[in-house]
Amino acid sequence: MIIIEEKTIRNIKMTMQYDGTGYNGWQIQGNTSNTIQGRLTELLSAVCGDSIELIGSGRTDKGVHAFNQIANFKTKSDISVELLKESLNQKLRNDISIKSIAEAAPRFHARYNAIGKKYLYRVWNQPYVNVFERKYSCHVNERLNIDAMRTAAVLFVGAHDFLGFSSLGKSNKSTVRIIYGIDVLEKNGIVEIMCHGNSFLYNMVRIIAGTLIEIGLGQMDIKAVKEVLQHKERAKAGFTAPPHGLFLSEVFY
Amino acid sequence: MIIIEEKTIRNIKMTMQYDGTGYNGWQIQGNTSNTIQGRLTELLSAVCGDSIELIGSGRTDKGVHAFNQIANFKTKSDISVELLKESLNQKLRNDISIKSIAEAAPRFHARYNAIGKKYLYRVWNQPYVNVFERKYSCHVNERLNIDAMRTAAVLFVGAHDFLGFSSLGKSNKSTVRIIYGIDVLEKNGIVEIMCHGNSFLYNMVRIIAGTLIEIGLGQMDIKAVKEVLQHKERAKAGFTAPPHGLFLSEVFY
Repeated sequence: MIIIEEKTIRNIKMTMQYDGTGYNGWQIQGNTSNTIQGRLTELLSAVCGDSIELIGSGRTDKGVHAFNQIANFKTKSDISVELLKESLNQKLRNDISIKSIAEAAPRFHARYNAIGKKYLYRVWNQPYVNVFERKYSCHVNERLNIDAMRTAAVLFVGAHDFLGFSSLGKSNKSTVRIIYGIDVLEKNGIVEIMCHGNSFLYNMVRIIAGTLIEIGLGQMDIKAVKEVLQHKERAKAGFTAPPHGLFLSEVFY
Repeated sequence: MIIIEEKTIRNIKMTMQYDGTGYNGWQIQGNTSNTIQGRLTELLSAVCGDSIELIGSGRTDKGVHAFNQIANFKTKSDISVELLKESLNQKLRNDISIKSIAEAAPRFHARYNAIGKKYLYRVWNQPYVNVFERKYSCHVNERLNIDAMRTAAVLFVGAHDFLGFSSLGKSNKSTVRIIYGIDVLEKNGIVEIMCHGNSFLYNMVRIIAGTLIEIGLGQMDIKAVKEVLQHKERAKAGFTAPPHGLFLSEVFY
């Protein structure tokens, strides 16, 4: 009798932090390893001795950062999660950090199972360049009206068709999304816009941030938010705030 | 009668912020412009059309940052302080920022008139690399005992001979300095050590920080602080904490 030992397929969940400054975003493009997903896939494949497919909770654009990005992958390797974490962190440049690695349920899927996300948009709102914030915030020289921004932020809350607050142009899929809340906080010259929703369209957080910034500067009327939600005209929303102010903050399952 | 119009000599005070990562510290060394003072002197001389001598409140070492460094210089140029600030900020790379420029009293001297300084030492105290803190804090993996650090911090307060907490070896000048207070704060994984004193010896803040870190890790006894203050033995104090965690925070006049 021949006994064939089938290697168990494990499903592994990773929590990562990254400084997006030097990368072309999360998603692999062609052969470039200059993406977060590309870099991690290379390393994981080498360490696990498998051909790894790494599934992220979602893409982040070129220059966007993450405090907590979640991904999963399947492997036949029997390496311990502790050793895997250590190996990866040793090999990574110091702009990606693996915060934790754990075994996941066999059917856990980082993208399909995500039920909500928080994105943070950071604005440096003082009349001088802050050298420590230049890569991690959008610089707005003139004083923002925080009350106006908060009043406008409330209008986004709920289920709406956010097509006008996206760079999609048009879409065959539903562009209805639910925003659970947008908090606008101010501390030590930094204005933080925290967006919590079920999921987000392409560039949606950056356009919401740009709209709130223009409202805070008095360059746009609060009523415009309602109009764009109703008529879905991208041109009437605010500018697309630059990527380096944006952080994927949390993914909920 | 011949009237000779003497150009007035102005004394100008600048407040600067800098990310010390890419520089060989504040002070000009030979011909290198890769120092903060060197870079600013070059620019000021070009903008003012004068040969400028820039006087800083004190040196900062290679890799050390500043939230607020103060300097002054004399010039015959009649350029407005507003235009001067704008010209400098346009020409500077984005790792030095001029926060403010103002006319100063004729005898104001950034170094001699300083009556106190605050230095901040930052520690990232979580068991993973924080990619956003890697250039701006010292990473300590193991949990620091903040209470022990606070208890030890109090022992530095007052007028003491800090020779044992410096890299001077020996000195012909007085090595007595006054520490007004050392606060140890913890927030979001960052431990901040804020040192307020009349002035500081070479590497004094970094050795105090290193000593407090070793005490926080239980690797050094609190009593060692008193012993080093008494016997001035550098070897019995803690390690010199790395420069990238250190910030010149405020200069008082």
